[in-house]
Amino acid sequence: RYGYFGRGVSLMFLKVSGCLTDGKVLLSASREDSVSVHTRDTAGIRMLQKDDVEVVLLVSRDDRVLASMTEKLKNLTGCEVMMVADEPFSDIQPVVEKKKLDWKDVAYMGSEESDSSCLSLAGLSGVPADAPAEAVNAAKYTCRLGGGTGALREFAEHVLLQKETAKSQMKQDRIYRINF
Amino acid sequence: RYGYFGRGVSLMFLKVSGCLTDGKVLLSASREDSVSVHTRDTAGIRMLQKDDVEVVLLVSRDDRVLASMTEKLKNLTGCEVMMVADEPFSDIQPVVEKKKLDWKDVAYMGSEESDSSCLSLAGLSGVPADAPAEAVNAAKYTCRLGGGTGALREFAEHVLLQKETAKSQMKQDRIYRINF
Amino acid sequence: RYGYFGRGVSLMFLKVSGCLTDGKVLLSASREDSVSVHTRDTAGIRMLQKDDVEVVLLVSRDDRVLASMTEKLKNLTGCEVMMVADEPFSDIQPVVEKKKLDWKDVAYMGSEESDSSCLSLAGLSGVPADAPAEAVNAAKYTCRLGGGTGALREFAEHVLLQKETAKSQMKQDRIYRINF
Amino acid sequence: RYGYFGRGVSLMFLKVSGCLTDGKVLLSASREDSVSVHTRDTAGIRMLQKDDVEVVLLVSRDDRVLASMTEKLKNLTGCEVMMVADEPFSDIQPVVEKKKLDWKDVAYMGSEESDSSCLSLAGLSGVPADAPAEAVNAAKYTCRLGGGTGALREFAEHVLLQKETAKSQMKQDRIYRINF
Repeated sequence: RYGYFGRGVSLMFLKVSGCLTDGKVLLSASREDSVSVHTRDTAGIRMLQKDDVEVVLLVSRDDRVLASMTEKLKNLTGCEVMMVADEPFSDIQPVVEKKKLDWKDVAYMGSEESDSSCLSLAGLSGVPADAPAEAVNAAKYTCRLGGGTGALREFAEHVLLQKETAKSQMKQDRIYRINF
Repeated sequence: RYGYFGRGVSLMFLKVSGCLTDGKVLLSASREDSVSVHTRDTAGIRMLQKDDVEVVLLVSRDDRVLASMTEKLKNLTGCEVMMVADEPFSDIQPVVEKKKLDWKDVAYMGSEESDSSCLSLAGLSGVPADAPAEAVNAAKYTCRLGGGTGALREFAEHVLLQKETAKSQMKQDRIYRINF
Repeated sequence: RYGYFGRGVSLMFLKVSGCLTDGKVLLSASREDSVSVHTRDTAGIRMLQKDDVEVVLLVSRDDRVLASMTEKLKNLTGCEVMMVADEPFSDIQPVVEKKKLDWKDVAYMGSEESDSSCLSLAGLSGVPADAPAEAVNAAKYTCRLGGGTGALREFAEHVLLQKETAKSQMKQDRIYRINF
Repeated sequence: RYGYFGRGVSLMFLKVSGCLTDGKVLLSASREDSVSVHTRDTAGIRMLQKDDVEVVLLVSRDDRVLASMTEKLKNLTGCEVMMVADEPFSDIQPVVEKKKLDWKDVAYMGSEESDSSCLSLAGLSGVPADAPAEAVNAAKYTCRLGGGTGALREFAEHVLLQKETAKSQMKQDRIYRINF
């Protein structure tokens, strides 16, 4: 009867490409490639961490540019970085099980069609405004902002608000049980 | 009577500047220059390749920045890179002939007035939303998105949909001929 | 009775992240990171300096990228760079006091929720168009333009206009006092 | 009685910052800074050069980043690069005189308030869509596109169209004089 049974989201998976970045890669002939990240979004990650939500970054094994930057991403965000297949479900499922979590207590943010199964399963799930239709349809929340320009911060606030609501509902529920 | 005679597009030419990139070049005084590419667009190339469409990247010989990056572009996309004149028709025509293809079975994406003849000839042709009017008028499909921000992915989906339609039409046609 | 008691703003604090920059950081695996600044905005700083407004740049101690660029920012703008806590009030208050200024004579531009107390206190305060709601609500002026794309120039013009108005009001006032 | 007395524009001054670039500078702590230029705009310069319009790039002496890139800009565009004061009129006037040109036969593109006098004097003058109001008011043509994203190409087409019109008007005029 109650969405979160009082526990709330404690784990969030976040696709780096297209969610933490805007999906663009800056290429040069022989130098290292670059991606751009918005400080408003890294602040969003910190907000989640402060509220005891563990954020795990997902990088596709095929993505050579981001794969070379895992150390940098770890330092920037304080998050673990997980290398996943194009379709991340099979890599994530063992993690959810090992942590003895229900998918209902997991948040997921992605921006690709291949994220659809995870977006459908997760209790809270979001896509940036510029995600393709298949991802938008699978997600529970569509951000007003695009990837790499605040969408992550927006989804983080959404997750924290849902946690807050779940907590006060749980409180209400306890009061009700005590009094009646 | 049927648009594709059941064969469908098997070759696509793609102008790098303005289609795979957003047309911008990042310059510095003495270091290498850079261009930006969207992962959504490189994913579009992979979708075409999986469906047996060979994608050939076109780089103008005058474009010193992109000309220095052919190796990088090849690694990123798995495509051949062809150096072409400002007006690419005379460089492409021999390739189409050698592969014994009809222009009807060729897809072309470009973003410049000089692409007009190829855009007119190709069975499927597209331009990004920010292409100049001459290119838009010559193309069969105008993308909703701009160059370097998803237009290529959009055109790739358009090409795949057309292939799908052509295939089912061919099937229908065969059934019809067998039964009547 | 008069907003500025004839003195007007002589000091402006400016958050670098999100106001002078667009908030984005360009990351690469092992090279230095980069941020982008608009020349229209650095011109805005010069306009303020010419009109005897001291501009002090604020960089969060947590912001490793900008913290590594203080020398560069100093050379670019001719401004002092102050390292501040996430909530800059406690770092700024001593400076305002030492300069024997009233917060009414201080301008402040920021783009984060943590800037809210300073935005509320400052006589003139502004946020870029893309600031979060909490910052917008605390600021006296919301720019039409976003951070890193002209918002600072816009706010500089607003500050200079207010100074102009304050001066002519003061003049009027003096004339009035002399004649009556 | 005729706008161009049959001669038409043969010289164009082009402010690099904000017209050829989008005004943004990418900064890093100790590496070289970068600016971004659109290939559509460099193509616009080539269109002008082909039609015998000499294009001279203007870089402000105060602009350390662009001042360090004059060689690069020269190679990219094939144009001379002139270092000018913030208000470029006094640097340009001698050039116009030396070339025995009338300001009526000069085109000017700028994006700053300090360009106003040149924008007013030049026979054809343009500003990008994102120029400040003072520059827009002084210019004869306001581009639909912003600086660094096609505004220059747009203005180049405008200049070439005006030249075309002037030429056919001159022709008409000659026919008229011969026949009547």
